[in-house]
Amino acid sequence: MIIDIITIFPEFFETFLQTSIIKRAIEDGLVEINCHQLRDYSDRKHQKIDDTPYGGGAGMLMQFPPFYEAIKALKKKDSHIIMLSPQGRLLTQSVATDLSTYNHLILLCGHYEGIDARVEALIDQEISIGDYVLTGGEIPAMILSDAVIRLIPNVIAQESYEEDSLQKGWLKYPQYTKPDSYEGYEVPEILKSGHHQNINDWRKRESIKKTYEKRSDLIDKMTLTDHEQKILDEVKSKNKS
Amino acid sequence: MIIDIITIFPEFFETFLQTSIIKRAIEDGLVEINCHQLRDYSDRKHQKIDDTPYGGGAGMLMQFPPFYEAIKALKKKDSHIIMLSPQGRLLTQSVATDLSTYNHLILLCGHYEGIDARVEALIDQEISIGDYVLTGGEIPAMILSDAVIRLIPNVIAQESYEEDSLQKGWLKYPQYTKPDSYEGYEVPEILKSGHHQNINDWRKRESIKKTYEKRSDLIDKMTLTDHEQKILDEVKSKNKS
Repeated sequence: MIIDIITIFPEFFETFLQTSIIKRAIEDGLVEINCHQLRDYSDRKHQKIDDTPYGGGAGMLMQFPPFYEAIKALKKKDSHIIMLSPQGRLLTQSVATDLSTYNHLILLCGHYEGIDARVEALIDQEISIGDYVLTGGEIPAMILSDAVIRLIPNVIAQESYEEDSLQKGWLKYPQYTKPDSYEGYEVPEILKSGHHQNINDWRKRESIKKTYEKRSDLIDKMTLTDHEQKILDEVKSKNKS
Repeated sequence: MIIDIITIFPEFFETFLQTSIIKRAIEDGLVEINCHQLRDYSDRKHQKIDDTPYGGGAGMLMQFPPFYEAIKALKKKDSHIIMLSPQGRLLTQSVATDLSTYNHLILLCGHYEGIDARVEALIDQEISIGDYVLTGGEIPAMILSDAVIRLIPNVIAQESYEEDSLQKGWLKYPQYTKPDSYEGYEVPEILKSGHHQNINDWRKRESIKKTYEKRSDLIDKMTLTDHEQKILDEVKSKNKS
């Protein structure tokens, strides 16, 4: 996969490209990430790329022509062009999974004052990473890249991938590592028992309990097995008493 | 406000701290951001901070003692301790607004293999920035910091703040800036008319239309004025025909 990022802060991505998983994926040739300076596509003095809104209003807007020219230069036959925007479709694990199948993503990073609306005619999709207001699209572009790159085959070990939280709908059970006791905080005895069946049962129950207590909205979207439904009913009746 | 970030990648935040709004807020003394290396709180050889999970499973977990010691060193009377985690409460603009009232936030960045569950006993809140799997808590900590810092009084101009998308529930109307024509893409005539009442009416309608078409789930959560309801009904009936 190739990811082209169009931004006024290409240097912002330098440390991101150096983080373990991304760096390895690049070195292994599984992904190529190029950051492009939007200003290079401006033909104005001092490479300016913003101006005041038609019809009045606060702040400056990013102009249409630099985005038009940047996209024209980078777009290929199989490109999928995404604008990071608070107005887009919400990013979820399933959206990230869809995006991980493309050969070429072009990501446009806006800034909080907004972008000339004509840019919408040039893109395939607007994506929002959440319902909150941010300064620019750079951190969202990192979020999207991170979520998508992890899903490209061979980027991370398959078993880690399958165990990830949210991957199967349930939140992950609580995990513990050494030391087994520290300042009065202990690891649950069952995890030290070596009895795999009991440990798996405990983990399943804790997963369901945690999801019910913290994110019951996720359960509404799932199809439960009889076994899961039974555990959920037990958890619910315990919470009531 | 003081934000203390506990992470194994403190250098990851360097460019973030240099971005316009954050940099200015720091220079104006409105916020102080300190990044702390978690490994400095490990007493193991080579400052190791991870180990295998009790009861088996893939990957390594971050250990309890370094977080315990880091929090002990940084916690003050009025600290609010947040773990960035895919299992937390979803960050929204209203959660960010709540957080912007604290004097001291401590943010814990985990990594995808997970953190020893005993850390949960030390924190006030788990926050997730969205329903997708990421490599670590560093980018989410930037997202949260960016969303929160923007809401601290005097960090950004009040009028920009009030005009931001999502701030009043509706998505922002389309905006346009110069040039008014480029490669066949035009600015709507009404915005060049100079007639403020017509422009405001057009913007209100476009805002409602956009929200209905892109994020109708947001409308379900709002209380509409009679005027807004009327426009919404018109938009709906136009979309049907």
